[in-house]
Amino acid sequence: MSLTNASPADAAQAAKSASHVLQTLSAEARNEALAAIHDGLAAAKNEILSANARDLELARQAAADGRLSQSLVSRLDLGKAGKWEDMLKGILDVRGLDDPVGQVTLRTRLDDGLELERVTCPIGVLLIIFEARPEVIANIASLAVKSGNAAILKGGKESTESFIAISRVISQALESSRVPNGAIQLVTTRDVIPELLALDRYIDLVIPRGSNELVRYIKDNTKIPVLGHADGICSLFLEPSADPQQAVDVIVDAKTSYPAACNALETLLIHESALSTLLPTVANALANKGVELRCDAQSKAALQQALPNLAVVDAQDSDYDTEFLALVLAVKTVADLDEAIIHINTHGSHHTDVIVTADKEHAEKFMSAVDAAGVYWNASTRFADGMRYGFGTEVGISTNKIHSRGPVGLEGLMIYKYKIKGNGHITTVYGEGEGKKRFKHESLPL
Amino acid sequence: MSLTNASPADAAQAAKSASHVLQTLSAEARNEALAAIHDGLAAAKNEILSANARDLELARQAAADGRLSQSLVSRLDLGKAGKWEDMLKGILDVRGLDDPVGQVTLRTRLDDGLELERVTCPIGVLLIIFEARPEVIANIASLAVKSGNAAILKGGKESTESFIAISRVISQALESSRVPNGAIQLVTTRDVIPELLALDRYIDLVIPRGSNELVRYIKDNTKIPVLGHADGICSLFLEPSADPQQAVDVIVDAKTSYPAACNALETLLIHESALSTLLPTVANALANKGVELRCDAQSKAALQQALPNLAVVDAQDSDYDTEFLALVLAVKTVADLDEAIIHINTHGSHHTDVIVTADKEHAEKFMSAVDAAGVYWNASTRFADGMRYGFGTEVGISTNKIHSRGPVGLEGLMIYKYKIKGNGHITTVYGEGEGKKRFKHESLPL
Repeated sequence: MSLTNASPADAAQAAKSASHVLQTLSAEARNEALAAIHDGLAAAKNEILSANARDLELARQAAADGRLSQSLVSRLDLGKAGKWEDMLKGILDVRGLDDPVGQVTLRTRLDDGLELERVTCPIGVLLIIFEARPEVIANIASLAVKSGNAAILKGGKESTESFIAISRVISQALESSRVPNGAIQLVTTRDVIPELLALDRYIDLVIPRGSNELVRYIKDNTKIPVLGHADGICSLFLEPSADPQQAVDVIVDAKTSYPAACNALETLLIHESALSTLLPTVANALANKGVELRCDAQSKAALQQALPNLAVVDAQDSDYDTEFLALVLAVKTVADLDEAIIHINTHGSHHTDVIVTADKEHAEKFMSAVDAAGVYWNASTRFADGMRYGFGTEVGISTNKIHSRGPVGLEGLMIYKYKIKGNGHITTVYGEGEGKKRFKHESLPL
Repeated sequence: MSLTNASPADAAQAAKSASHVLQTLSAEARNEALAAIHDGLAAAKNEILSANARDLELARQAAADGRLSQSLVSRLDLGKAGKWEDMLKGILDVRGLDDPVGQVTLRTRLDDGLELERVTCPIGVLLIIFEARPEVIANIASLAVKSGNAAILKGGKESTESFIAISRVISQALESSRVPNGAIQLVTTRDVIPELLALDRYIDLVIPRGSNELVRYIKDNTKIPVLGHADGICSLFLEPSADPQQAVDVIVDAKTSYPAACNALETLLIHESALSTLLPTVANALANKGVELRCDAQSKAALQQALPNLAVVDAQDSDYDTEFLALVLAVKTVADLDEAIIHINTHGSHHTDVIVTADKEHAEKFMSAVDAAGVYWNASTRFADGMRYGFGTEVGISTNKIHSRGPVGLEGLMIYKYKIKGNGHITTVYGEGEGKKRFKHESLPL
C-alpha cells in the first residue's frame, strides 16, 4: 500500500499501472499477500492501537465541543471488545473465499481450431470512499487484493492516524509479496474527492460506503460508474389472506430489528379488505415496539375504530417517499395488488420489497412486476444482505440497473474478457455465399 | 410504438410505465408481438418504400448541393437489393433467439422453507440513438421487445419519413398484441438528445449506434450508463516465432478486410528480432493491398534495407493513438513482450488486441496481461463481432469495464433480481451467538 501525498492523478495512474500486474497474479500469490497483511497487522497491534488512541483523543475533544457525535467517537475505537479480532478474522475469511478470477463462463468452438472463451477478470481500479471506521480499511484492501483489483482508498478524516498506521503495515506486507505496492493507495490529503471523481481515464468503478448524502453527492459528480444506492425505501404489501402471525413477525422484524439499515421497512401498503382484520393486530405489535404509524385517512379510521387508544399520526404525501431510518412507518391503503405494485414502482427506491400473502399467484405476480433488486414473499426485507445471501462478504448493496444489483459480493468487482485461440484464422473466408465457410458455434463444456 | 411529439420527459415516463407491464409478459406474448410486427411490415411494403423514396429525394438534393455524402444517401435506400428482405428476416431471427428473461442463475436454500433465487429480468428503459438507416429501427424495436425492455428511439433525421412510416406499422402491430403501445417510443422532434440524456430517473441505459463523435458526445453528457465504445484502436504484436503465413494472413485480414470497422487493426508492434525476417514479408503483403505504413525509425530502417523500393512514412507519436479507419497502419518496434503489453495497455482502446506467436507461454501471458475486451492468439481482430461469436445478434461492442464487455448480445440488455420465498421468516433468529440459528446456504440445482 502506498501512502500517498502525491496528486490524485498520480496516485490513480500508479494504481492503474499496478492493476495491470495484479490482474496477472495467481490466486496463490494474492492469497499469500492476504496472509502477509494479516500477520503484519497482528504483529503491529500496539503501534496501531496507539495511533487509534490519538484519533480517539482528538475525536473526544471534538465531541466535548459538540463538533462530533458520540456515536462517531464510539465507531472510531479499534480497542473495543472483539473489534480488532474481527478485523483480523475478516482478512482470513476473504482469503478463504473461492477465487473469482479466471472463471470460464462461456466456451464456443467457432470453427475447427478456433475457440472462443469468456473468462472473468478484475475490473481494474476501484475508488473506495468510506466513513471513519478504522477496521474498514483492512477489509477493503483484502477485497481488492482477493479480486485482483487495484484500489484507491479515501477514508473519513477522523480515522486518519489509524488509517496511516494500518496502511504502513499493509505496505510492508505487500513489499514481501508479489502484489505491487502501488495496487493499494491511501489518499489522506483533504478535499481530493472532486479531483478523484474526474479521473475516469484511470478509475473504473467508485464504491461509496457511507451516508446517503455521500452516495448521492458522488453519483451526481462523476462519470465513473458508481456501485451503491442512495435510498432504501422498502415497502411491504399485506394482503387479507396473509397468516396473521407471519404478518406480525415479518413486519416487526423488517421495521424494528435495525431501523437505521437501508433494508429496513419504511412503507406498509395494506389491502383495504385487511383494514379491520390484520391491520389492528400488526399496529398493536408495532406500537409495543415504539413504532410511530403515519396513516392515510382510511387506515387511520380503521385503527381508531379497532384500537381507540392507539395514537396514530396523519401521513403527509412526502411520507411515502421518505427513508425514515427510525421507528416510523408510513401506512397506506390500496384497493388491490395492481395499485400496490404501481405505488412501489413509483415511490420505492427499487431496493427490496415484500408481499405477505397466502395467494401464490399474487405472490408470483408481485415478484415479477415489482422493479426492485429484491422481491420477497413472506420474508423480512432485512434478509437483503451479502452475508445472509451466502456470498461470504458484501461489497455493498446496489440499486443500479446494470452490472450488479442487490447485495454485491466479490462477483461485483469482476468483469470478463473474451479470449480467442486460432491458427492464423481470418474472417473473410466465412459468410453465407457460395464457397464461404460457415461458423460451427458449437457450445463446449466449461 | 408511439410516435411522439410529446416532451422527452413525457415520452420517457410513458416508456417507464410500459416497461413495468412489458417485463411481466411471457416469452410467447413477446414473440407474438414480433410476428405481428413482421407481418405488418410485410403488408405495408409499398407505403414504407414510398416514404423512403421521399427521404431519398431530399437526401439526393442535399447530396447534389454538397450538404450530404453520397454514402449516406446510399445507406438510406431501403429498396436496395435484399435490404427489405433482410430487415424482415432479422425480426424473425430475433424472435427465434432463446428467451433471455427469467433464467435462474443462482438458487440457494438459506434455511428450511427459505429459498433465494437470482432471476434474469429486463433492465427497464433503453434510449437508443442511431444513424439514418431506415432498417435499423425494426431491428432495434425487435431486440427491445424480445428482451422485455421499453425503448425510446431517436434516429438520424435524414430517415425521418421512413422511420415514421415504419413506426406507424409497428404501432398498429403492437395494438393487436399484449405489448403495451408505449413500450416503444419514436422521438422525431429535433434537438431532444440533451434533454433525453438528463432523464436518468426514467432511462436506465443509453445505446448509441453511430460515429465515434456521437458516442463520445453522449458519454460526456449523461449520467445514464452508456453501452458502447468511442474508439477501436486495435493492436497486434508479432513475435519472431510466428508462422510467416499466419502472420501475413491475420494482419492482412485485420487491416484490410474492412478498414472502417472498429475491430480493424490500427497498430502493428513488431519484435525487434523479427524486423529483418517477418516484417518485410508482412509489409510487402500490406503494400500489395494499398496499405500505407507509418513506421518508427527502427522498422523503417529494416524495411529500407530489405525492400528498398517500398515507400514508408515516418510515424508521428500521435499515430500510435489514432484510429485511422483507413488503409493506414502504424508500425512500432518493441524489445520484448512486456514492452508490447505496456504499449497496448497505455495506447490501445481496450477493444481487441492480438498476439501472433508460436510461443504458448507468451500467448497466455499476453492474453492475461492485456486489458482489453478481446485478447486473441493467432486470429484476426475482426472476429470481434456478436454474430461471429455466435450470439445471434449484436447490440453493440462495449469497451466498458462493468456490465458488458466486447460484442454484446441480448444478455447485455438484461439484469437480474433476487427473489426470496419464505414462510414468515425473520432475521433476528439467525446469528453466531448461543440459541441463534445458522444459515444453511445450500446451493440448489438450477
